[in-house]
Amino acid sequence: MKIILASASERRRELLNKMGWEFEVLPSGKEEKITKEEPWEAVMELAEQKASDIAGQIRGDALVIGADTIVVRNGRFMGKPKDKKEAEQMIRELSGAAHQVYTGVCLIRAGNGTPEKKTFYEKTDVLFYPMTEQEIRDYIATEEPFDKAGAYAIQGTCAKYIQGISGDYNNVVGLPVARLYQELKTWAFRN
Amino acid sequence: MKIILASASERRRELLNKMGWEFEVLPSGKEEKITKEEPWEAVMELAEQKASDIAGQIRGDALVIGADTIVVRNGRFMGKPKDKKEAEQMIRELSGAAHQVYTGVCLIRAGNGTPEKKTFYEKTDVLFYPMTEQEIRDYIATEEPFDKAGAYAIQGTCAKYIQGISGDYNNVVGLPVARLYQELKTWAFRN
Repeated sequence: MKIILASASERRRELLNKMGWEFEVLPSGKEEKITKEEPWEAVMELAEQKASDIAGQIRGDALVIGADTIVVRNGRFMGKPKDKKEAEQMIRELSGAAHQVYTGVCLIRAGNGTPEKKTFYEKTDVLFYPMTEQEIRDYIATEEPFDKAGAYAIQGTCAKYIQGISGDYNNVVGLPVARLYQELKTWAFRN
Repeated sequence: MKIILASASERRRELLNKMGWEFEVLPSGKEEKITKEEPWEAVMELAEQKASDIAGQIRGDALVIGADTIVVRNGRFMGKPKDKKEAEQMIRELSGAAHQVYTGVCLIRAGNGTPEKKTFYEKTDVLFYPMTEQEIRDYIATEEPFDKAGAYAIQGTCAKYIQGISGDYNNVVGLPVARLYQELKTWAFRN
């Protein structure tokens, strides 16, 4: 079955590529709206919005994958930083502390048959070493933070500040490919 | 100060490169000998053997980095598989279970001044989803397992079988760059 990734994220595309799956990219242009308060509900809601938007536009059988990632520190949701100042604030809050990364994934089987939907999320705890103000400024200067939730890329040069994680690493990059593969396997058996 | 990586591992080279550090590669050709029984002692011992070998060969001030990684499951040490059969056995043992990855790192300041040495290790727990016999055979067929301790690459296509980890991800790839960066920072302040 044709797989469609309803996301503009380069990292998600790279992860799917690395898994050896063939897919098309059709990013959802719909404005995202969070109505839920709990992070796991919010990422699943956003993933569903993206997947539904694309599933409504396509013809023929396809599996649409929507995904959304947020960083949570002390109950505060962190999306992508608007500017340098906000990026600095985010990194300063993450420095020397633990936070959570949630990625919600929504799979919609769209097309001619009965539509089917499955939504799930993965949570990963991430612990940062303490960073000096100079290190924070140097990291912002790499420009790596600007299109990333929480203003950092675990797979980038920020790796040297990350003491450890608990959970799926690729979930922090932006897509829990292991869980996704397990879910797709179940679908393949059913269909 | 000049940094020398005393390892032939392409993954370690890539990780150091990604951190933006300049270094030379001088792999130690000395035969490795484990005399210790505990995994953390064994990886530190092997890292020291590699670093000492290279430190003894160079002239001028330099910081030599030696490293060694082993995978431990049920108390059994797993190095690189000798052949397809051993790779299959290793993956079969890791499937659906948790194991530990230890990387030992030895830093030796060699050259004109007083030699200084620092050795440490990092441990990461890794949990595999259960794999079918077909999945194990398919994974071995990618040839990814053959030059890796424990017969898998967490950064490769094996990612889809890894449910989660606890600890440093890059430690599983082969070099705990975050801890290494923190240690080098301390040295830089001292010297």
